Amino acid sequence: MFEIASDKLVYALSQNHAPVARVTNGETVVFHTCDCFQNQITHEEQEFGTLDWERINPATGPLFIEGADPGDTLAVEILSIDVAEQGVMTTGPNLGVLGDELAENVIRMVPIRDGVAHFSSSLRIPLSPMIGVIGTAPAGADVSCGTPGDHGGNMDCTKIRAGATLLLPVNVPGALLAMGDLHAAMADGEVAVCGIEIAGKVTVRLHVIKGKTWKLPMLIDAEHVIAIASEERLDEAAERATKNMVDFLEGSCGMERAEAVLLLSAAGSLRICQVVDPKKTARMELPRVYAEQLGFSFANA
Amino acid sequence: MFEIASDKLVYALSQNHAPVARVTNGETVVFHTCDCFQNQITHEEQEFGTLDWERINPATGPLFIEGADPGDTLAVEILSIDVAEQGVMTTGPNLGVLGDELAENVIRMVPIRDGVAHFSSSLRIPLSPMIGVIGTAPAGADVSCGTPGDHGGNMDCTKIRAGATLLLPVNVPGALLAMGDLHAAMADGEVAVCGIEIAGKVTVRLHVIKGKTWKLPMLIDAEHVIAIASEERLDEAAERATKNMVDFLEGSCGMERAEAVLLLSAAGSLRICQVVDPKKTARMELPRVYAEQLGFSFANA
Ligand SMILES: [Ca+2]
Ligand SMILES: [Ca+2]
Ligand SMILES: [Ca+2]
Ligand SMILES: [Ca+2]
Ligand SMILES: [Ca+2]
Repeated sequence: MFEIASDKLVYALSQNHAPVARVTNGETVVFHTCDCFQNQITHEEQEFGTLDWERINPATGPLFIEGADPGDTLAVEILSIDVAEQGVMTTGPNLGVLGDELAENVIRMVPIRDGVAHFSSSLRIPLSPMIGVIGTAPAGADVSCGTPGDHGGNMDCTKIRAGATLLLPVNVPGALLAMGDLHAAMADGEVAVCGIEIAGKVTVRLHVIKGKTWKLPMLIDAEHVIAIASEERLDEAAERATKNMVDFLEGSCGMERAEAVLLLSAAGSLRICQVVDPKKTARMELPRVYAEQLGFSFANA
Repeated sequence: MFEIASDKLVYALSQNHAPVARVTNGETVVFHTCDCFQNQITHEEQEFGTLDWERINPATGPLFIEGADPGDTLAVEILSIDVAEQGVMTTGPNLGVLGDELAENVIRMVPIRDGVAHFSSSLRIPLSPMIGVIGTAPAGADVSCGTPGDHGGNMDCTKIRAGATLLLPVNVPGALLAMGDLHAAMADGEVAVCGIEIAGKVTVRLHVIKGKTWKLPMLIDAEHVIAIASEERLDEAAERATKNMVDFLEGSCGMERAEAVLLLSAAGSLRICQVVDPKKTARMELPRVYAEQLGFSFANA
């Protein structure tokens, strides 16, 4: 089992970054990750202005996966996510849905004890660890780790959690995978601009699937097959996630497009990932049983 | 128990409509409803052009509730929803998310048998009956039953189902409640522009709450308190649903606004109702346990 320390990090996904390591196809890898503030926030009285804003949204990596060539698909099987003992939340002016009305930045430290997040003296939030930032290098210009896109990145999708397999495009040799920005818990929308931000480690198994069949990113878990799309406006992200799933149903399940959209209208949930990043992210969740009943097998996905 | 036949219907919510009946506060009422095509579609070969498009999205009512005055809140406790034995789905050019690429209208009849919807010979969809159109008369101009808004209307929210209590504003004397557009099943998004459209009946108990505390519509069920908002763009609908829930947490649970948005970011799910009507609808779902732990009681809601 290969491990990558949390000081091997990048602030953008880029084809120009030298890989921190190379692994073979099929390898299990542990990514140790800082929180999205690179662990700079340690107490609630900290001055927001003293933070180094160049060190935001670090992602551990990038990792070169041998055998991954442009045009392939990288399947990232998320085996486990372990989070640290304390998380942090922040919001303030120009941050999140209330950014137009808040006058001051606020910091809240959130201890993780007894398997729950202690949001306040009276409120406990169940843990639901997830990965905020995970992506491969794009083929073109670098993309900041704060921005989501077709390469993955800051999708902040609550379904990117242990037990799920995320499918990402391989755009450059070796894929150059990186990840970070774990959340001990986050709800769909991420409306304040954060989850319960936390350091931790992610254990993944990496598989290269030769060629690319579907529009990516996609995600498969025990219950759903999910298409994820990011656009500047939520309306367009939602539309593209839906169309990408129609493409899947047409291309892999043999459905006519009109029939596919009817099935999604009755049984495929269009959901919000986040509405607070430079692009917004939506997903279309189809119960995988429908694809399986149409003869499609996820055995290799 | 008072019953309203499905031929007592309107195509808009309007302060100018004469009520079809008057009931006292606390009454249980059965609304019999046509499907959204007023039951005009009976087979899959039917010509779309032969349908009477003036008779779309009928709502049964309006009903005058005694004691409901402008500025009050009408609580609609949904006791049961029973659907007919056959539903219908349609999509086509300019309808739904695929409306820009489909060349022909399609009709699919969906039999309901053995407690499931028979979407095709191979695909069955579990029933999840819900109300697509439900609202009170607005104070200003009439609003077509096809359009959602602050008065309710065509919200197409999957949570408006048996066991839930929907809170609507009383804008005119008697509230003038109407409802229709049942779905045997629909998924969040309603991406093809329909659920499994179906006739049926809805049994509700009506309570007038004097005064109005919250921005409406809101919905309370066994698990969540939900704020619903509709705007031309999904981005704005999502923002307003979030802010309305922040208002609730501030006004009724004593939270500071910044703390409220942090709680929602960690534990309140921002979801899509529909993206296909003249206005789009989003909702913010907060597990009601958080409000209860903050000392708020839903006993009277
Ligand atoms: Ca993030
Ligand atoms: Ca984050
Ligand atoms: Ca984010
Ligand atoms: Ca509707
Ligand atoms: Ca409908």
